Amino acid sequence: MAAELTAHELTAQHRPTLDQALEAIRTRAYWSPHPEHPKAYGENGSLSMAEGKAAFDALLGSRLDLGQPGTDDWVGGETSPYGIELGVTYPHADVDVLLPAMRAGQRAWRDAGAETRAMVCLEILKRIADRTHEFAHAVMHTSGQAFMMAFQAGGPHAQDRGLEAVAYAYAEQVRTPDTAEWTKPQGKRDPLAMTKQFTPVPRGIALVIGCNTFPTWNGYPGLFASLATGNAVLVKPHPRAVLPLALTVQVAREVLAEAGFDPNLVALAAERPGEGIAKTLAVRPEIRIIDYTGSTAFGDWLETHARQAQVYTEKAGVNTVIVESTDDYKGMLSNLAFSLSLYSGQMCTTPQNLLIPRDGIRTEEGSKSYDEVVADLARSVDGLLGDDARANGLLGAIVNPDVKARLEAAAGLGEVALASREVGNPEFPDAVVRTPVIVKLDGARKYWEGADDEAAYMNECFGPVSFAVAVDSAGDAVELLRRTVREKGAMTVGAYTTDEVVEEAVREACLEECAQLSLNLTGGVYVNQTAAFSDFHGSGGNPAANAALCDGGFVANRFRVVEVRR
Amino acid sequence: MAAELTAHELTAQHRPTLDQALEAIRTRAYWSPHPEHPKAYGENGSLSMAEGKAAFDALLGSRLDLGQPGTDDWVGGETSPYGIELGVTYPHADVDVLLPAMRAGQRAWRDAGAETRAMVCLEILKRIADRTHEFAHAVMHTSGQAFMMAFQAGGPHAQDRGLEAVAYAYAEQVRTPDTAEWTKPQGKRDPLAMTKQFTPVPRGIALVIGCNTFPTWNGYPGLFASLATGNAVLVKPHPRAVLPLALTVQVAREVLAEAGFDPNLVALAAERPGEGIAKTLAVRPEIRIIDYTGSTAFGDWLETHARQAQVYTEKAGVNTVIVESTDDYKGMLSNLAFSLSLYSGQMCTTPQNLLIPRDGIRTEEGSKSYDEVVADLARSVDGLLGDDARANGLLGAIVNPDVKARLEAAAGLGEVALASREVGNPEFPDAVVRTPVIVKLDGARKYWEGADDEAAYMNECFGPVSFAVAVDSAGDAVELLRRTVREKGAMTVGAYTTDEVVEEAVREACLEECAQLSLNLTGGVYVNQTAAFSDFHGSGGNPAANAALCDGGFVANRFRVVEVRR
Repeated sequence: MAAELTAHELTAQHRPTLDQALEAIRTRAYWSPHPEHPKAYGENGSLSMAEGKAAFDALLGSRLDLGQPGTDDWVGGETSPYGIELGVTYPHADVDVLLPAMRAGQRAWRDAGAETRAMVCLEILKRIADRTHEFAHAVMHTSGQAFMMAFQAGGPHAQDRGLEAVAYAYAEQVRTPDTAEWTKPQGKRDPLAMTKQFTPVPRGIALVIGCNTFPTWNGYPGLFASLATGNAVLVKPHPRAVLPLALTVQVAREVLAEAGFDPNLVALAAERPGEGIAKTLAVRPEIRIIDYTGSTAFGDWLETHARQAQVYTEKAGVNTVIVESTDDYKGMLSNLAFSLSLYSGQMCTTPQNLLIPRDGIRTEEGSKSYDEVVADLARSVDGLLGDDARANGLLGAIVNPDVKARLEAAAGLGEVALASREVGNPEFPDAVVRTPVIVKLDGARKYWEGADDEAAYMNECFGPVSFAVAVDSAGDAVELLRRTVREKGAMTVGAYTTDEVVEEAVREACLEECAQLSLNLTGGVYVNQTAAFSDFHGSGGNPAANAALCDGGFVANRFRVVEVRR
Repeated sequence: MAAELTAHELTAQHRPTLDQALEAIRTRAYWSPHPEHPKAYGENGSLSMAEGKAAFDALLGSRLDLGQPGTDDWVGGETSPYGIELGVTYPHADVDVLLPAMRAGQRAWRDAGAETRAMVCLEILKRIADRTHEFAHAVMHTSGQAFMMAFQAGGPHAQDRGLEAVAYAYAEQVRTPDTAEWTKPQGKRDPLAMTKQFTPVPRGIALVIGCNTFPTWNGYPGLFASLATGNAVLVKPHPRAVLPLALTVQVAREVLAEAGFDPNLVALAAERPGEGIAKTLAVRPEIRIIDYTGSTAFGDWLETHARQAQVYTEKAGVNTVIVESTDDYKGMLSNLAFSLSLYSGQMCTTPQNLLIPRDGIRTEEGSKSYDEVVADLARSVDGLLGDDARANGLLGAIVNPDVKARLEAAAGLGEVALASREVGNPEFPDAVVRTPVIVKLDGARKYWEGADDEAAYMNECFGPVSFAVAVDSAGDAVELLRRTVREKGAMTVGAYTTDEVVEEAVREACLEECAQLSLNLTGGVYVNQTAAFSDFHGSGGNPAANAALCDGGFVANRFRVVEVRR
């Protein structure tokens, strides 16, 4: 077909952005082309706040026909954590028809080369960015994130992570030149001369298995890394968070077609309730790459069984913050309070275990006992969430009944330092909104002593649950940190200390156990947030995840280079 | 300990070489710092031919004490394929002592940083290069390669592949800066500012499982890639090819100690006969990386069972050459004859199946029937190997009785176009030296028709055995190529054609099945040889190997980056 978007036009428009992204991943200084403020949208083709809301409302109850081959049914049934039925239906695929159709366009996509693929990916991201306000509602009403977070994390931050993956993918592919002339001297004889062509080739079809809480943020890196390296991409969203990824697939298919490529290079695999299609797809021989975010159990299953594929998993971990000493006690408390509260702790990066010496900590206000620190932190969370409107804006809604059940059970695990409370949401009365619970545990009390403290803090309790774990010393805290990362994995580690020896011990533990460390955060950066182009999300070196977002290792095996020499 | 070699001195000496290597892997033009000619050695500290021979002779019957902790026994018993007993004994390790000792020096090695590690690796390679003549004999008398090949492939070419791995490892680690200042504007408020440190951290202990035929060439990439990325490396050589890797470990330990690092960062795991220590080591929790060259069966076992490790395997494949047409018939025949003969076909890259249309091929001498082509090729091999001295120099010795048995059985698989003959070796009368056999098979005759042609050509027959497979057409040849690569894997593919349509079909098959293609080789470059810094060895995208030598994918997951932000 004649392309409406030529490679030349796309390059003129997007190459400067790619170049900036390439520079950013090299320097890791701050950079983003995607504005974070809702008011920055509404001009130059992007939807305004009102337009985005209207576009989302128009989707409710609709059939999202993506024009996919092999569509044998229409499925859907998402209920927002805020209580509303989305009523959107999506194509259900006969994978024996869809998968072959996805391969049909791979040769042209491969032959287009790394730069054109990057430019098409950037155009997809640009059109998604223009609809950020629409995506914000889609993310909000599937993940339960509050609007502002859904807007930022589901919009510009997710787009940043997608662009970052495109930049890494592009850089990796162009490390080898397209052609080389090789001339080897042979003494007095004529030199040997060869012409060599190098072509990045895709592995096949990539499968992205989305999650409920961050469908775009966690979905985009794998999606764009695989697409930019020449693979077709099948997106299998979480059944409760289909819409944001279905819209993404829709945009990708539009752009591919306009650029003269087969839209079936990107497709959606929505499923019937209980169908469990991920397990079926994951072991299909056509599937050569899998990106997954979710439970450790299924991530481990994928790593064990999907042997025909490169498998990138982000699973569960137990995140620790060591609180040893600080010179900004209030800053520490408010920073921690925010981290525990944001999205009701439903982030893979939220701290779970706060390790605090039982003899207390040193602060610029003098020493504070363990009990004081925990009480002050509880007060700080209470203060942050005292106003219901503000609480709703930070907490969002509980994403599913399992989280609610865990939260309710947590109060029985130890002495409750801060009880969870219900927050009413006037706009969405059916939303389940809860403040975090903080439970006191004792790190020296092992399960064999008749208590189950260790059983509690050594397991992930996903949701708004934190444990204030009393430890004997800073050294014990570091040892427990080490053991937790080694056995359970961690997406994040935090520490507050003014003691250089303690800092060095924590740092060394993180280097040896391979965990990302944030030190003494007291301002507007939080341990549970990472910035694309600068911060790595996960390390890929502990049990929480086998890959990091984003580095060379995340992209280098999504394609191979075939050499033709003559 | 005080370092005898300072980082500064090492950098002054080796940084220019690293820079040239980095440039070479980027341009992929010809480059090597390691001379191929035996006479280039003997000055500037390198051993001359006579000195190398004397050094090797002095090793015979000796105990190679590497000073390793946990040595509980001395083992050895290599017999050269040329018939002599090496009589060298090596430390046998109590791995419960050795593995912990190997971890002791990892922190200092990690903290040394990517550049210092690269410089130490280059010093190791330099000292190995100085002993190339000694290594040549060690490789010759373990692999059975003829001297000149053992010298070149086991010496400069192996060193090139090691250096290439160091260059990739260094480049990958410095893609992320050591530190970054991150400043995010906040409108009218003060910007958010963070200082970030990024540290490449090793995965743990890497295991290199060596092979019999190319102990250094196949061993060095993994060894140096893992060491350069901060890991300790345990080398488990093939029981029949211990000496070249034991000497390598000895040099590495010397250099590490002189540079102030723990020599136990590199160690040898020699084994008792039948001990099968690779299986035990491969699943130890300390082992986080495995590099393996050898049989498909054990490679698959490693990929399945060594789940705690990153596993890089080079296994078996079935290499194909399509002979469709040529404008240099004699050049083609002599090039193929050399490829079939070199090291008695005991290379993972040696062509096995020659696919030739049954109606013959076009040449600049007119058309040649299938029978003529096969007969002419047989004559060409005969001519190449007619002189016993020259035959010995090309063929080397049969590496083990299995190869000899396969060679003898091959004659029963079809009509023999060229019989294997015994070649006497006056210097080593016990050497088993054999010329290759060429057997005619029919690609249209499937096993269900009462013949076993397909069973023969669709399985790897490692050794000096080639099948001249008659096919119905060029199209059939391409289809059979595709199927062979997909089902059996291939390290190399060759094709001779002057037809653009056929060339494009072969090229497309190689791009889709991910195999490295050499077209119309008629001169001094052979399908079974690749040049470091320019050619990829394997693709990592078909069943013959899950990694290529050498690319970003080979190094990117040998380390992780830990970020500390404050």
